[in-house]
Amino acid sequence: MKIIEGTISSPKGFHADGLHCGLKKKKKDIGWIVSDVVANAAAVYTTNQVKAAPISITRKAIEHGQTLQAILVNSAVANACTGEQGIKDAESCQKMAAEKLGIEPNNVGIASTGVIGHLLPMKTLQNGIEALQVESGDSYGFHQAILTTDLVTKEITVETVVKGKTVTMSGVAKGSGMIHPNMATMLSFITTDAVISGELLQELLKTTVDATYNQITIDGDTSTNDMVIIMANGCAENEEILKGTPEYTAFVEMFHFVAQTLAKKVARDGEGATKLIEVSVKNGIDRESSRMIAKKVVGSSLVKSAIFGEDPNWGRIICAIGYAGPKIQPEVVDISLGDQEVLKNGQPVPFNESSMLSVLKQDTVCIEVDLKMGQAAGIAWGCDLTYKYVEINACYHT
Amino acid sequence: MKIIEGTISSPKGFHADGLHCGLKKKKKDIGWIVSDVVANAAAVYTTNQVKAAPISITRKAIEHGQTLQAILVNSAVANACTGEQGIKDAESCQKMAAEKLGIEPNNVGIASTGVIGHLLPMKTLQNGIEALQVESGDSYGFHQAILTTDLVTKEITVETVVKGKTVTMSGVAKGSGMIHPNMATMLSFITTDAVISGELLQELLKTTVDATYNQITIDGDTSTNDMVIIMANGCAENEEILKGTPEYTAFVEMFHFVAQTLAKKVARDGEGATKLIEVSVKNGIDRESSRMIAKKVVGSSLVKSAIFGEDPNWGRIICAIGYAGPKIQPEVVDISLGDQEVLKNGQPVPFNESSMLSVLKQDTVCIEVDLKMGQAAGIAWGCDLTYKYVEINACYHT
Repeated sequence: MKIIEGTISSPKGFHADGLHCGLKKKKKDIGWIVSDVVANAAAVYTTNQVKAAPISITRKAIEHGQTLQAILVNSAVANACTGEQGIKDAESCQKMAAEKLGIEPNNVGIASTGVIGHLLPMKTLQNGIEALQVESGDSYGFHQAILTTDLVTKEITVETVVKGKTVTMSGVAKGSGMIHPNMATMLSFITTDAVISGELLQELLKTTVDATYNQITIDGDTSTNDMVIIMANGCAENEEILKGTPEYTAFVEMFHFVAQTLAKKVARDGEGATKLIEVSVKNGIDRESSRMIAKKVVGSSLVKSAIFGEDPNWGRIICAIGYAGPKIQPEVVDISLGDQEVLKNGQPVPFNESSMLSVLKQDTVCIEVDLKMGQAAGIAWGCDLTYKYVEINACYHT
Repeated sequence: MKIIEGTISSPKGFHADGLHCGLKKKKKDIGWIVSDVVANAAAVYTTNQVKAAPISITRKAIEHGQTLQAILVNSAVANACTGEQGIKDAESCQKMAAEKLGIEPNNVGIASTGVIGHLLPMKTLQNGIEALQVESGDSYGFHQAILTTDLVTKEITVETVVKGKTVTMSGVAKGSGMIHPNMATMLSFITTDAVISGELLQELLKTTVDATYNQITIDGDTSTNDMVIIMANGCAENEEILKGTPEYTAFVEMFHFVAQTLAKKVARDGEGATKLIEVSVKNGIDRESSRMIAKKVVGSSLVKSAIFGEDPNWGRIICAIGYAGPKIQPEVVDISLGDQEVLKNGQPVPFNESSMLSVLKQDTVCIEVDLKMGQAAGIAWGCDLTYKYVEINACYHT
């Protein structure tokens, strides 16, 4: 597998476009991904009980045949808490995109992100959909069109060889605030030209999301709109990837890498963040509890503020481990910040202040926790809590 | 029941003192509460698995006979993650205080708050204990000596008449950061001269704490050191308060009022806070789920930031209700901010911008949520998330 320059339309047979239609003042706000042929598809959605209209439309579309041929995305307006009208509007968007592309509405997924409680301005969206291109589209424009408070686009493209055929996978994501466990205001779209069944994709997506997107946290909130969709259109014409084969292992690895890369980029671009925080828990009782502890540490406002202040306040780390939920043995826990051990068997270890400062000044701060209880591990990613986070969120909406 | 001016030593037979012994640079850092006679006592402690040394010492003392005669408290150093030496130090403090007072060590409770992972400077503490007074103590000094990043002292004193005898109850608390569910770095001490058994006190304390202290959240972290202790020394010489009597009901009401007042004061004085946020959930399925939802809303960083920005961003409120956990029906939920309805049956209601602004400019912002599912209610309290919170926590320790 190697990383290549590319966009969401790099896999064979995909196209993408993104442009400004007027939902935002100036920035791009609508885009789509289109496949030449119907693609096998899988998706996971927010666990929030309050689900935006596009969630139910896309779920219905994918459940219909585990396929999609296009995904239409708008930013600025989330189309959440918009009742019957919101559902109708999302359906209209789906139909308009399908008509323009000459494909089945059931093969068009819809995603929205932005402010909750506003109806979509349908005339503006209609103009946007009419203006979107396929062959001559600005595919990097798609990466930009899905952003809200994000500062940077987030993408990764990789390729590998499956029995002599080059298979490409590309992913793009938007995130920023309201990102926590189970699909917060995060949208991520992954395209691949691999030949693989929709059922296998769905199974793989679930386990991949659990280890990656669901292990990032910005502020503990879970949004109404999040989804991750993968489309595999088979244009690479490789021999079908089947479970248990070496090709399957290679595909899983590629998929995990793409998802993890995007998840870390989303965490690093958390609202107001200056640093990525990576918490690795090892020797836990089981994977679930190790992941839970990692995520509690990376989600603690006190830990996040301390990292912002470049303060090796390990007390807040052991404290978060203690309230995370899973059973621990406080008197055996070790904690390191980068290569500097700070806690050994539950008690402080003197450390070199200047070595510590150089650890805390890095763009990524790694916290390692050894629970010494079993053999399971878990990793979670987040970002520091800064003045900028408060500023962004005190002044976003009305 | 009426509110009176007073301190923690207002109930008959109690004394208190607080002074500076050198744990902090200038401010008061050690104090005690002393009863003339052995008092019935009850306590609840942090649920964090990492428990500070004073927690186990105090627990052992109270379990010994459900009594205490004194509580020694220091701020600045938490004596948490300090291993065997930390336990020995807490025991020494207990013994020194008992010797000075000429009482049983088993009747001395110990509480500490401050930085984790540092050993207590025992010589400094010894000097402090030697300097503490009983009869001539500065009882308001105790309120000050237990503070860390708190900006104000928190206290309330009330009295009522139980069958012709005046019964007084006074409470004091410290809180600020790291305050969430189950007893975070919060210390609270309540004294009363009522005649009531230790067993009844313990039972009452549990239900009272669940409805008050455990319903406040500042930043979602749960500390290693928290406890709430109540001492009832019987000096009011009222007829013993027994369960099921009118006197019992009056006592419960007084106790609940004192605890709720202190809990709200702790929330209002959350690190960097400019406002108290009160979230009332009504018509929930049961009390537990109603309380859980109220607490998730008041704990959401996005809601907290919006309130700081005086932004009626009800989308974040319904979003938090949706991920809180308990089953809801999003399409029937109503939400009000103060007297302004913002969401009716899951959909936005236009509101008057200037009336809304006057709601959001108040020192206490009330959010009311009507779930329309049952008859239970729950309230939670918290504070807004501000630049100052980040500043305080980015620069607290090393």
